[in-house]
Amino acid sequence: MSKQELAVPGQDGVDGCCPGLLTAPLGEAQSVELAKVFKALGDPIRLRLLSMIASRAGGEVCVCDLTPAFDLSQPTISHHLKLLRQAGLIDCERRGTWVYYWLLPEMTDRLAGILTRPAGQPLPEPAGTAGDA
Amino acid sequence: MSKQELAVPGQDGVDGCCPGLLTAPLGEAQSVELAKVFKALGDPIRLRLLSMIASRAGGEVCVCDLTPAFDLSQPTISHHLKLLRQAGLIDCERRGTWVYYWLLPEMTDRLAGILTRPAGQPLPEPAGTAGDA
Repeated sequence: MSKQELAVPGQDGVDGCCPGLLTAPLGEAQSVELAKVFKALGDPIRLRLLSMIASRAGGEVCVCDLTPAFDLSQPTISHHLKLLRQAGLIDCERRGTWVYYWLLPEMTDRLAGILTRPAGQPLPEPAGTAGDA
Repeated sequence: MSKQELAVPGQDGVDGCCPGLLTAPLGEAQSVELAKVFKALGDPIRLRLLSMIASRAGGEVCVCDLTPAFDLSQPTISHHLKLLRQAGLIDCERRGTWVYYWLLPEMTDRLAGILTRPAGQPLPEPAGTAGDA
């Protein structure tokens, strides 16, 4: 069905080896997979939760320390955390009463990699746009 | 209202100088702004369009060269392109019959920067998770 289907660049582009978003047309399968992760990031509450988890000195955060930062119920916070987890951005473990969350840096590394311009290959400026409005 | 409001790291983090998502809790304003961009990326069609535009050797693409790659009408493609443009990921210019699109690499650079782990600061592994399921 798709003319792009055979042009899938490195699906396992975890280590920055692979072409990514800026160097070759994405294939359908990879675009569906990546869109899920970006969609999970496409919400202010989830971005704040992710940054709180990722920047935590000890490497993990109790849900009991996340909830007080928001004017939201704990079930709502837990729902947002579930979407981040389903996207492969964080993982968690229950210990006693509370659930503890931590970043899965492989996924953020992967996103950073596919959004990074290849070294020594600045993107060309389109002709005739420098002086245009 | 927010306990996070004063902790906004470098809003203009284009050049990788600024803390970003992984090093400090995002402020509300920055999370709202960033979520719009990630939401624009949270769709497979838009990701494919962006990659087709970004990877174009000449630096820009005629909409007439984008539409045939999809089983979608040109108005639908144009709508997706409009959302990418509103997110600051691409820009465009009409020339005669057609509209030409190009990447705004400042925005993808910014996203790559905020998703990149700071040099020399590997994220800590949470204790007790190495052997867990």
